[in-house]
Amino acid sequence: MTGQKIIQPTNRFRNNAKSVGIGNSFWDMSERNGLAGIVAELHDGILRTEAGHEFVNFSCCSYLDLDSHPKVIQGAIDALRKYGVLDHCIPRSRVQIPALLELEASLGELFAADAISAISASVASAGLLPLIASGHLGNGTRPLMIFDKNCHVSMAQAKPMCADETEVVTSRHHDLDFIEDRCKEYGQVWYICDGSDSLGGYAPVKELAVLQDRYGLQVYYDDSHSTSAFGPRGIGYVRSTIPVLNDRTIVVTTLNKAFGTSGAAILLDGHPHETLRVIERFAGALSYSQPLNTAAVGAGLASAEIHRTDELTALQRRLQDRIALFDARIRTEQSGTTFPIRLVPVDDATVIEAGRRVFEAGFYVSPVFFPIVARGTAGLRVMMRAGHTDEQIRELCAVLAEVGAPSVAQSCEGAGS
Amino acid sequence: MTGQKIIQPTNRFRNNAKSVGIGNSFWDMSERNGLAGIVAELHDGILRTEAGHEFVNFSCCSYLDLDSHPKVIQGAIDALRKYGVLDHCIPRSRVQIPALLELEASLGELFAADAISAISASVASAGLLPLIASGHLGNGTRPLMIFDKNCHVSMAQAKPMCADETEVVTSRHHDLDFIEDRCKEYGQVWYICDGSDSLGGYAPVKELAVLQDRYGLQVYYDDSHSTSAFGPRGIGYVRSTIPVLNDRTIVVTTLNKAFGTSGAAILLDGHPHETLRVIERFAGALSYSQPLNTAAVGAGLASAEIHRTDELTALQRRLQDRIALFDARIRTEQSGTTFPIRLVPVDDATVIEAGRRVFEAGFYVSPVFFPIVARGTAGLRVMMRAGHTDEQIRELCAVLAEVGAPSVAQSCEGAGS
Repeated sequence: MTGQKIIQPTNRFRNNAKSVGIGNSFWDMSERNGLAGIVAELHDGILRTEAGHEFVNFSCCSYLDLDSHPKVIQGAIDALRKYGVLDHCIPRSRVQIPALLELEASLGELFAADAISAISASVASAGLLPLIASGHLGNGTRPLMIFDKNCHVSMAQAKPMCADETEVVTSRHHDLDFIEDRCKEYGQVWYICDGSDSLGGYAPVKELAVLQDRYGLQVYYDDSHSTSAFGPRGIGYVRSTIPVLNDRTIVVTTLNKAFGTSGAAILLDGHPHETLRVIERFAGALSYSQPLNTAAVGAGLASAEIHRTDELTALQRRLQDRIALFDARIRTEQSGTTFPIRLVPVDDATVIEAGRRVFEAGFYVSPVFFPIVARGTAGLRVMMRAGHTDEQIRELCAVLAEVGAPSVAQSCEGAGS
Repeated sequence: MTGQKIIQPTNRFRNNAKSVGIGNSFWDMSERNGLAGIVAELHDGILRTEAGHEFVNFSCCSYLDLDSHPKVIQGAIDALRKYGVLDHCIPRSRVQIPALLELEASLGELFAADAISAISASVASAGLLPLIASGHLGNGTRPLMIFDKNCHVSMAQAKPMCADETEVVTSRHHDLDFIEDRCKEYGQVWYICDGSDSLGGYAPVKELAVLQDRYGLQVYYDDSHSTSAFGPRGIGYVRSTIPVLNDRTIVVTTLNKAFGTSGAAILLDGHPHETLRVIERFAGALSYSQPLNTAAVGAGLASAEIHRTDELTALQRRLQDRIALFDARIRTEQSGTTFPIRLVPVDDATVIEAGRRVFEAGFYVSPVFFPIVARGTAGLRVMMRAGHTDEQIRELCAVLAEVGAPSVAQSCEGAGS
């Protein structure tokens, strides 16, 4: 007889039955309402579906619109011509053409760090976190790894791999007391969290720095959402908030959002040459024969050049103007912060319908919901970009108010009643 | 008092202390001997180091030299100009420009399958294998997952993630009896292996197909090393050996080797639309906002076009001619096969020195060693490409014979003595 054995999953760190079960029905509902699975051509910042509906994307992370900057595109083309290949397929630990080294040297100078490239931030995290678990990025001691409950899934998914190399726990969101208590118990502790998160908030970088000084705590940040958009030369929230000049902090960041290109960078300091070699050789896919392609390298070099000029400062200022314009109209928990993301609270039951009406009015905003956010905290996520016009922001805010978003005027009336 | 807790790792599926400990010393030795960490400019197929040493790369997986094909490079440039961005950063499950869909339609037609793109084969496997574990790519039953002992690390690294969703075991290399026995015990079994492996061999695809028919066994192949180089239209070893027209076989392949571009493709058949949506939404990094960039898409479209012409057949034939020329001179376990990789056996103790002498003579071949291969099976890995000249192959074989490789003439003498 075949097939008698029944498997009981452990589900210590992940549970597809739960996440797919709940998430998929919401995605299906989104798609039935035309808010997911949208295909559209992009021309001059306007998206146009095959059926002819035109809309402005308020859910794109290219916060400074560098993705369509002519110099960035030309940089990609120049590199393709210069190197004559997208990639010369061989692990870089053996032989490499100088493409990645050029980009890493430029990013290292720009962000004042040692920079290692990866094809994505998730690939970087999947490669680095297990090496952290086994003590290979520290003094050899296996650390306790504390993953923040809300850290991006690209980091959270590494928990089972890390748990086979060391002890792994999940903390409540930014629970500094918990982290400090663990620092008292363990010889070495790493805390894994978003530096800037996809729902619009920053990590308590200064408070963590105190624990880093006091206990030798090490922190792994994904700062993808603030790179380029924030700080001098766009060095992002974490590295502009604390001077990071030792081996207790690693920042990983995508180059695919405000930076405007493809791939990711690992920014680290104070590690000896041998440790950097261990990363190159053993950090998962960083050691395979598929690095960032030369188009991404060339685009990255061009974007880094823009970061060194006043043009970046002007783009950052323009982005902040857009954010202020929005905040003057719609009240969110993020109001008044520098972060380009606003989560407009909408009831779980009506979030899809609200998103549909906003889309019909010519604006795409993302309905977010479990498992992306906790139940009862659904909303419309709005991402602003430097390239949005004043008129686009004003019209978006008007339609958001129509579908029930708390407008600033209404809030004032409420406060006075 | 702080730091008293000592952590004992479980090391059920991975052990960095062991793999880094042993592997790193060998990499260091390779680098000290100038056989790793090489940086060189590529011009017309010749690599040149800063110090002026020129060499031909016999360790590059671009088996048909499509990576430097002018049409492929032009395809990348055309797509950058057409789309005007490397990527419009938003998860494709929400909004996408048509770039990926164009490539997937082309690859689907070329390889007669449903095709889903990924930024790398390792990203595809890291996303798909946990969904297989939880039964989401099958009938909902959690399967026993059998990972082949030798399967590429990009698949093996997913074991801890899969083991949190279902039962995971590791089998000896291509152990058909073991697989059949498990099929008798479990309602659903997946076997995970290389279709074509990086040390030069094919999976027992036909024998596995018998088990697939008899027990409903499902097989996940990484066929990266044979795609483009093998089969009509370059469909690779697995899909040219068995007609794959049902949901019991998934082939993942890089587009970065013989195909000559960047990224990867998942080729699958017979899955309903809803399952393809689950993959897009929940297969790890496939659902994030960093897809294949438009340069890779354009290059991929151009390479796919070449695959539809006689030029591909000519390149494949030329590659086989190179392989035959090599086999007529140097005897390896792979002699006489169609596979473009040859592992020239060399003693563990002398493999580095042998590689160094070959490199000095103007050819880079990879010394391979534990943990890439088992102890006692070291060698020089030679990868042939269509673009190598007869003279280059002959000269390489001459120097290989000088450093102790078993030449065909010597073997004949040996047999006669």
